[in-house]
Parts: sequence; structure tokens; C-alpha cells
Amino acid sequence: MNHLLSMNELSIEDIQYILNKAEEFKSGKQDKIFNNKLIANLFFEPSTRTRFSFEAAEHRLGMNPLNVEVNGSSVQKGETLYDTLRTLEEIGVEAFVIRHPEDRYFDGLAEKINVPIINAGDGCGNHPTQSLLDVLTIQQEFIVLQGLTVVIVGDILHSRVARSNAEVLRKMGARVLFSGPEEWFVDEWKEDFIPMDEAVEAADALMMLRIQHERHSNSMLLTKEDYHQQYGLTIEREKRMKPHSIIMHPAPVNRGVEIADELVECERSRIFKQVQNGVFIRMAVLKWALTTNQEAVDHGLLIKKR
Amino acid sequence: MNHLLSMNELSIEDIQYILNKAEEFKSGKQDKIFNNKLIANLFFEPSTRTRFSFEAAEHRLGMNPLNVEVNGSSVQKGETLYDTLRTLEEIGVEAFVIRHPEDRYFDGLAEKINVPIINAGDGCGNHPTQSLLDVLTIQQEFIVLQGLTVVIVGDILHSRVARSNAEVLRKMGARVLFSGPEEWFVDEWKEDFIPMDEAVEAADALMMLRIQHERHSNSMLLTKEDYHQQYGLTIEREKRMKPHSIIMHPAPVNRGVEIADELVECERSRIFKQVQNGVFIRMAVLKWALTTNQEAVDHGLLIKKR
Amino acid sequence: MNHLLSMNELSIEDIQYILNKAEEFKSGKQDKIFNNKLIANLFFEPSTRTRFSFEAAEHRLGMNPLNVEVNGSSVQKGETLYDTLRTLEEIGVEAFVIRHPEDRYFDGLAEKINVPIINAGDGCGNHPTQSLLDVLTIQQEFIVLQGLTVVIVGDILHSRVARSNAEVLRKMGARVLFSGPEEWFVDEWKEDFIPMDEAVEAADALMMLRIQHERHSNSMLLTKEDYHQQYGLTIEREKRMKPHSIIMHPAPVNRGVEIADELVECERSRIFKQVQNGVFIRMAVLKWALTTNQEAVDHGLLIKKR
Repeated sequence: MNHLLSMNELSIEDIQYILNKAEEFKSGKQDKIFNNKLIANLFFEPSTRTRFSFEAAEHRLGMNPLNVEVNGSSVQKGETLYDTLRTLEEIGVEAFVIRHPEDRYFDGLAEKINVPIINAGDGCGNHPTQSLLDVLTIQQEFIVLQGLTVVIVGDILHSRVARSNAEVLRKMGARVLFSGPEEWFVDEWKEDFIPMDEAVEAADALMMLRIQHERHSNSMLLTKEDYHQQYGLTIEREKRMKPHSIIMHPAPVNRGVEIADELVECERSRIFKQVQNGVFIRMAVLKWALTTNQEAVDHGLLIKKR
Repeated sequence: MNHLLSMNELSIEDIQYILNKAEEFKSGKQDKIFNNKLIANLFFEPSTRTRFSFEAAEHRLGMNPLNVEVNGSSVQKGETLYDTLRTLEEIGVEAFVIRHPEDRYFDGLAEKINVPIINAGDGCGNHPTQSLLDVLTIQQEFIVLQGLTVVIVGDILHSRVARSNAEVLRKMGARVLFSGPEEWFVDEWKEDFIPMDEAVEAADALMMLRIQHERHSNSMLLTKEDYHQQYGLTIEREKRMKPHSIIMHPAPVNRGVEIADELVECERSRIFKQVQNGVFIRMAVLKWALTTNQEAVDHGLLIKKR
Repeated sequence: MNHLLSMNELSIEDIQYILNKAEEFKSGKQDKIFNNKLIANLFFEPSTRTRFSFEAAEHRLGMNPLNVEVNGSSVQKGETLYDTLRTLEEIGVEAFVIRHPEDRYFDGLAEKINVPIINAGDGCGNHPTQSLLDVLTIQQEFIVLQGLTVVIVGDILHSRVARSNAEVLRKMGARVLFSGPEEWFVDEWKEDFIPMDEAVEAADALMMLRIQHERHSNSMLLTKEDYHQQYGLTIEREKRMKPHSIIMHPAPVNRGVEIADELVECERSRIFKQVQNGVFIRMAVLKWALTTNQEAVDHGLLIKKR
């Protein structure tokens, strides 16, 4: 079995296995392979969208989900996350999906748990199933990533998605550039930043990030309109994109901020296709995570034994 | 497919189709017809009773429900309802059950969504499955509505139920009168109001409404006891009802206010029978809403194409 | 059918039937015996751990759970518990699992409900499935309880678990002693109290209780460290336990308070085994509660007709 904690623990072979499985599930194969298995969706931070995507994947695999969202859990009673997981393991849970506000909550934990943990987002660090569905969406469009230019726009500093995406896309051969407000830059990638007006012309795939109003309410001095004009995908900028280029966003979208309202469902937008791909990626990740060692050897997969 | 948004969009044929299907389900036929279909119950206002009734209906049809109640949803992140529904559509949800505090939240929305929306209550306007189960309960009792006198008692002004009920009952041939405190009257129906002492004698079906303490806490000057004496169904008043007359209430009941505690489960009370009918109506509504155009043509149904 | 409200309504025959069934379920038999039955888990106090254990049991029996946790329920609308249960009965719910902050919430209620109520904890009084899983765990270890010494340590006064456990263990032939802070003693059992240093040497099974920080925050003058030194199972004390003795705790554990961190998963600890047994006990309780009168007669069971 395998944990899915962050993108940089995945080999290219793992990623390719998951992408292939996702395509298989999309084409309708092997649905109820995990009939009656219990799975726990532990959301220590609300995210209905991500939870529903996992739940949909679990139902399609025939699994029985147990759901908890942050309040009303025994977390309030001060139990450690380790004890919660060990308890659920004894209850018969065969996989965990966890979203947690703390960065790398799984450090020092995953190696003690004998059931796969799927990280559904931690702090501002990792959100691997989101990264995988992004890669799947790009691959469906361009078949190979080699030689593509992907521009990630927005709050690189706080984004769960930006960092792991950048890493995996580069690993798979894409050129990755960044855009957005200067104060959200990451120092190490400073030379890869370009202004938005250049970004729209350079990108094969333009990945907008969501503005986290929750995080920026005080620090952000710009109005929404100003943000949109300076860093957003305006109607005017979209016209200067290459004919084949696509628009992506992890959603939920702030309409009229990151992207003009009218463009959310325009022809180049893959925003809702990403959502659809999310379910297939999560099915594939569960398949990969619950793969036995023998199956993995048969498939020539690298196995992380924990 | 069909949305169920409000009673006045339903033709008599639609209503009759739903009532017939409900009777079929009640007699035990065709249970798991929607096996493994995903359905989302989105309650932007808590109502465990209504949610459980829908959930029970969905389980009996073999569906997999995804549940969200108001807090902890991405609604908090400021996503529009449209984006939430479109997202869930892409996730694979095949029908929506929605309760929302805003009047006619579905206006300008339903025509853009390709999956049926079942309105489970909006603002103080519509609650069509409640109206349908009320009609079913009356029909089970009297076979035809033609010529019956139904008196609706209580807060006509704020009730989700009262208005649509009155309209549909009249459409189906019943005489509808009203009773209750004068300040809760609707001007257009003023001449159809009668005092409670007359109401109990006139009614074949006496439909009590629930007092919304939430809404009236400030405006209502009467004590609960005074309300009960002046406008409630007291033990004394019940005795003056016709031998065959029935008592109805959408529940939850304020015992000793709208109706005397002792009468809630008396022989003429159909209050818990209404609850039971609710599940069959919701199964029937889902069947109707998910009916394909071809099936509908075969059944001679009017189809609303959206 | 049978309600499970408190341990002292259970005969030894009932208990033995449930323990036997639990062992059968543990060995993998008869899983989906209640396929598609609706069950409602009503938690008027949060307890994810207990809810998940019941949910896991229900899924293994093939049941469809309806879940409600305290907020967002129509309880807020002031409906009585009786009306809630009657409503759910009409909706088609075939069993209730209820946790409620009020002591003996079920008094005057259970006899009016025609569907079994499983008490999942009330006030500080009863938590029968916890008691049963404790007995099962001891029985698995020692085969018979006759002649064993069980020491219960901690807040006897406020514990859901302590009282019913003590009673049932004595009924089954064990000697039960108590330990912990003097202010948490129960007068009637005063002569059965021994200091912790004696307790560890006397016990075949040492049952630690959880410190309810919620309840004691003001009254407790000891620091956690002091509590641990005076009344807890320290590393030093564990060494003086008999070779075959076992450690039990209902969990969640306050590590380093009731019990040293290092001992939670030590060789004598049955803490996580208790959790595992919990699922089988709850399956067995549901089987027992939903047993028809005829089946019960066939099995020679005492039946409580309500």
C-alpha cells in the first residue's frame, strides 16, 4: 500500500500509473473494485468541493465513506491525530482522506499507520490530487508535456497547488513560469516571473490560482477591480492568448477577480473539465494507494513500504 | 428531465402522475430504479426532518446521497450557487435537492443546470414536495378533492406551505378557506377567512400551519396559551368537527399552541401519516424529475424542456 | 425487538447472547443480514469515535445510516425527542442509536417507540455498548470472569462507563475495586476503594477511565503531572502489575495523565483491541435489538416486550 502525501514523493512511474488509471476509469472500466470497504474522510478544515469529489470517487468504487468535518469531532477533546487514525484503523477503516490546516501534519505519523493516507490538502503546502488532476487535464489537451509553457498566476507564496504543480510539471518536461503580484513571489523562482501581459502570450496552459481572501484581507491593498486589471485574466488579455492555449483554475473562482466572469466557461476554459477529471484522479489514487505489494510488482511499480 | 421548483409550474397531469407513482411506491413496487446514482442534498438552512425524508427516499431508490448542511460549505468562500451546482454536475451528481433561505433562489439558475433541481423549500415561498404530500394525504382519505372544504389555519403570510397548497387544492377542485390571526392574513384572500370556531365545523380537512417562533418572536404579542385559545385546535373545538374530518399539520408541531397536545395523535390526526407519505412523494418526484423525454412521451406527460 | 438502554435491564442471558454474536461477527459470519434497513444515528452531543464505530457496524450489516449531530437539527426548533423519533419511525427508520447529554433521556419515551433504541451514552449515566465491549475484551483474555479482580481507576462519580461496568462485572462474578482521587468516590462503594499503588498489584484487569477535562476544569486543583504521579498508571507502576494483567481504557486517552504515553500501546494494553471489539459488539447489539420475538423464543432468549 502507498500513502499519497506530496507530489515530490511520487516517481514519474507512479504519476504515469495514476494518470493511466484515471483515463481507464474515465472510459468507464472496473467501477466497483473496492465494494464495501470503509474509508474515512477527515476534514479538519471545511472543503465541501474536495470532500464531494472524493466521496463521488469512493461511491463509484463501491466504498462506504465515513465523514467528519471539523467541529463535533473528538479532535475537540484533544485527542492526537495519531490516536484518531489508529482508532479508525481498528474500527475497520481501510483508507484515510485527510485535509488539515497544519503544514505537513502527516510528518512522523504516516510511517506508524498501516492504512493509506491520501492528503487532501495541508496548510499551504501540498494538495497532490489537485496537482494530478491538473497534469491530467494538460495531458489530455497536449498529449505530451515536453516543450509546453505553463504559466502559474497568483499567490505562489500561499498556494497549496502552485508549488507542487510547478515541481511536477518541470519533472515531466514542461517550462513553468509565474506571474501575479510581486509580494506573492517566492524568492527561489524570482527569475521565472513574467508580467501578466507577457504571460498570456507565452502560455500554452495558463493556470490561475484562487485569491485566498481569508488570508489576504488585511495585507492586500488592491481592490478587486485593481487586482483584475493588473494581474487578472481580462477579456482583453484573453484575446492575445495563442489559438490552442487553455485556461485552468482550481476553483472556486472569484469571478471578476482572477478571471473575467465571461471567461469562466469560454471555449478555452478547462475549469469544469478539471472538476470532472478530479473524480477520476481520486479513483485512480485510491486504486494506486490500495494496491498490494504483489500487484505493484506485477505492474512494475515502485513501492514505498512504510 | 424536469425541475420541481414550485407548485404552479406543475400541470394537473404532472401532479396526477406524481401522486400515482407515490401510491405505487407505497405499495412496494420498483424500489432500486436509480441504483448508484449520485444525488446532492444541499441544505443552506437546517431541516433535518426534510433532509431525512429525502435521504430515506433516495436510499430506497438505491441512490448515493452527498449531504451538506449550511456551515462548512464552500458557500462560505463566496462561491455562487451556480458555480456550486455546475461543479457538482461535473462531479457526477444526477439530481439536486436544495433548501435555501432566499425566496426563489432558483430564478435565473435552473435553466442553466442540466440536472434536475428539487426545491426542498425556499424563503417563505415554495415547498412543493410538502404540498404534494398534503394533497396525497387528502386524496387517500376522500378519493376526490372536488367539493371538499379545506381550511388552512395559521400564518398564511409567511408560510412556505400555505400559498402553494391553496393554489393546488383549488386547481384540483377543493374549496379553500383560511383562519388564524388577522395580522397574518393575505389581502388577496381576505374574503375567504373565517374565525376558528367556524373553521372547525366547516372543514373536511383542517390544515394547521406551524407557528414560526423564529419569525414572530417580536411581533407576536399573544402568549402561547392565548394563541391556543383564540386560534388553536383546542380539545373543545375538535369535538365540533364533522365525523369524517381530518387534522393535518406539516410538523414539527408546537404542542399546546397550534393544536392541543392530546390531539396530535388522535383518531382524526393524519400528522404522522403525512410524514410517511412524504417519503413516497419524494421517491415519486425523483422518478418524475429523472424521467427521460422519451419515457415522458410514452406516458403522455407534459414535458418542461429547460 | 429490544431496546438497549442501560446494563441493568440486561439479563445474563442477554449479555451472553450479545457476547456470542459479537464473537461470531468477529470470525466473519453473516455480514449483510440487515441489507438496506434505514437506521438513524442521533448524536445530540458530539462523539465521532462512537458514531463511527456504530456506522462501521451498520455498514457491515448492510444498513443505510442517517446521521445527525447536534447542531442543525430540528431539535433547535424545539421539537420534543418523542416527536423526532416518531417522525423518523414514519420515515422508515428501523432502529435508533442515540447519544444525549441528559441523564436517562429515554425514560417515558422508549415504551412509546416501536423501533429499538440503542443508547450510545446519556449524561453521566449509561453507555451500555461500551460496557459490553469491555466485558468482551476481558472475557477474550480470561475466558471466565469468575474470580477475577478488576480495578476501575478515575472519575467514578461522573463516568458513563464506571457504574454500569462495575454492576455487570459483579453480576458476572468478578471482584470489582476502585481507585483514583478521593473527591471522585461514590459513597456507596467507599469500602471498595484502594490506593493506586495497591491497585496495580491487585488487578487482573486495570480499567482506566478518561479524565473529563470538560467537567473538571475548575474543580481540579492538580496539574496533569501531579495527577499522573498520584493516580495515573506510570511506567514505574506498570512494572509491578501481575504478568498476565491487562490495561484497558475507553479512549480517547489523555496521554501522560491517566496513563504514561509509552504504555498506551504496550504489550499488556488492550486499548485498541477494545476499539476493534466495539464494532463487533455494536453489530451484535443491533442483531439482538432487531431480533423478532419468534427468533428470540427459538433461541431461548428472555424478551422484553414494550
